[in-house]
Amino acid sequence: MVATELRTDPITGRLVAIDLAPFKRRDDFDLAPARLEDPPAQCPLCEGREAEAGNEILAWREGGPANVPGWSVRVVPNRHPMLRIEGQMPARHDGLFESRDGLGAHEVIVETPIHDQPLHALDVDRLWRVLWAWRTRIQDLKRDARFASVVIFKNHGRAAGARLDHAHSQLTAYPFIPPALADKLRGAARHLTKHGKCIFCDVIAQELTDGRRIIRDQDSLLAIAPFASRVPFETRIVPRDHAPRFEDASDNMLHALAAALKEVMGRIDWALERPACNLVLHTGPLNGEGDAAFHWHLEIIPRVTRFSGLEWASGLYRNPVSPEEAARVLRGDDPRK
Amino acid sequence: MVATELRTDPITGRLVAIDLAPFKRRDDFDLAPARLEDPPAQCPLCEGREAEAGNEILAWREGGPANVPGWSVRVVPNRHPMLRIEGQMPARHDGLFESRDGLGAHEVIVETPIHDQPLHALDVDRLWRVLWAWRTRIQDLKRDARFASVVIFKNHGRAAGARLDHAHSQLTAYPFIPPALADKLRGAARHLTKHGKCIFCDVIAQELTDGRRIIRDQDSLLAIAPFASRVPFETRIVPRDHAPRFEDASDNMLHALAAALKEVMGRIDWALERPACNLVLHTGPLNGEGDAAFHWHLEIIPRVTRFSGLEWASGLYRNPVSPEEAARVLRGDDPRK
Repeated sequence: MVATELRTDPITGRLVAIDLAPFKRRDDFDLAPARLEDPPAQCPLCEGREAEAGNEILAWREGGPANVPGWSVRVVPNRHPMLRIEGQMPARHDGLFESRDGLGAHEVIVETPIHDQPLHALDVDRLWRVLWAWRTRIQDLKRDARFASVVIFKNHGRAAGARLDHAHSQLTAYPFIPPALADKLRGAARHLTKHGKCIFCDVIAQELTDGRRIIRDQDSLLAIAPFASRVPFETRIVPRDHAPRFEDASDNMLHALAAALKEVMGRIDWALERPACNLVLHTGPLNGEGDAAFHWHLEIIPRVTRFSGLEWASGLYRNPVSPEEAARVLRGDDPRK
Repeated sequence: MVATELRTDPITGRLVAIDLAPFKRRDDFDLAPARLEDPPAQCPLCEGREAEAGNEILAWREGGPANVPGWSVRVVPNRHPMLRIEGQMPARHDGLFESRDGLGAHEVIVETPIHDQPLHALDVDRLWRVLWAWRTRIQDLKRDARFASVVIFKNHGRAAGARLDHAHSQLTAYPFIPPALADKLRGAARHLTKHGKCIFCDVIAQELTDGRRIIRDQDSLLAIAPFASRVPFETRIVPRDHAPRFEDASDNMLHALAAALKEVMGRIDWALERPACNLVLHTGPLNGEGDAAFHWHLEIIPRVTRFSGLEWASGLYRNPVSPEEAARVLRGDDPRK
């Protein structure tokens, strides 16, 4: 029988049950094709249909007017936004129930003009432009004093919640700190108070000494399989040196990130047979209040397992692949089993 | 454009973004068949293969020996347990990393001897025996002083994480309070301190006055669509009167629960075209420390939407169907659109 270990995430305190067995692709992994096969002729994100996607907020263009072909990255408002610029800030109360307007920003970053081109198939220079768009939009949105934080994510493939094949990411700006980021900030603040240091920096130091969960250590960035990984092959890409906010990253850092992302996602594609996956960018609060405690990072979350009643009922993730095994496979230490 | 409202769950404080539009089944709902079509000839839970499923811990039988055909409900150890009776309680520490053995109990309740019979297709008397098995197992496990809480759940259909078609639920007993239950207990304790009352009782009173989210109000039980529902047609079934622990429920109460579950799951089957779904039973800590604050309840969680990067990145659920609309449809107020 496979032994299971319960691990506590050092940052958030969340619990994960990890099976400690050699990696073997499981029969019940969800390896349904990531692609949705939506017809390119109807894709609103393709070059030539700029009017359908919406007026561009930002684009990378070699000159020429806005909202026409000739771009390599393009940012537009989300057509089905969860958050909107119009709305009231204060909450409404009805007895025990509290609600508020979905005030904020919800944008789409179209990562390529070409329909059938996943983010990590772009060459590093083109991938860099996507990260440039992320950084530029955060820098712009932080001038709106109503916003407290920006979170960027990506859905790649049906099982990851994508509704279009055309590669794109999404930016959300909130007038508060959303729960998943707040959990990390709370843990980081606690560690700072107790130890006087950034917990991400301390985790990096311990991981470098240990070595078992390091996937890639190159340039100024580290790719690691987190100790309490929630899903098989979860990967965190993080700057080696303390850096609280993504919008302050240099061009060089973004080039290094583009190269790391391309390489690591390519290896995950190989190991899990082109899985659906999500990306998450977590960066410190816009007003800098997390600058001493927090450290920006990117999460890659392959979606080959499904949440079951166990996750809903206990709030505890069950992960059938240990991060040590995932890192070993992704490093290419020995052939895939 | 559909307006979106952010709602705060009064018990846990979690945030949900709810689209306030009339209910319409969406094109992107996951309506893949719930069934896995695993061959009955190889099903370890079918009558006649008792040795494969494992030695029974409990069974409902009309006389006769154990571990042979003739049962209507049967409880066996999980063959791939996350938690085991053997193991050390104390945590291990390695720098910032904490881990512990998966100590606990992990059992399977086989709900019927017949392969192709969903729980809510059982007649009420047979369904009652499943709830009897849940209650009996909790009563037994609470005699083990190492256990702090029991959580029961069910995976129905592939999208809900099921790995077998044969209807079964799972019981997990923990030497601590698992996070999802701890979140509720924390909120309930806060409310008790502030208002001197059980928050579930207060929510029930407000829901009965309001009426919009009531799905069914019969016998001693209420089925409601929670104000901050995380997924379309999420349903909570809860005793009307204060009742902290499921294992103390009377036979009558379990009969009422069997009838409520059968009826409500049947209506959800109709509204969402036989969706995959999870069930969750949350009951107070075994030692009774939550008795004043907590109130046992059953959650039905249909799985027609997928978690996307939004949920991972923000920790905020997006629900395209408001609970008011879900309750209206499930009450049968007007024909399905």
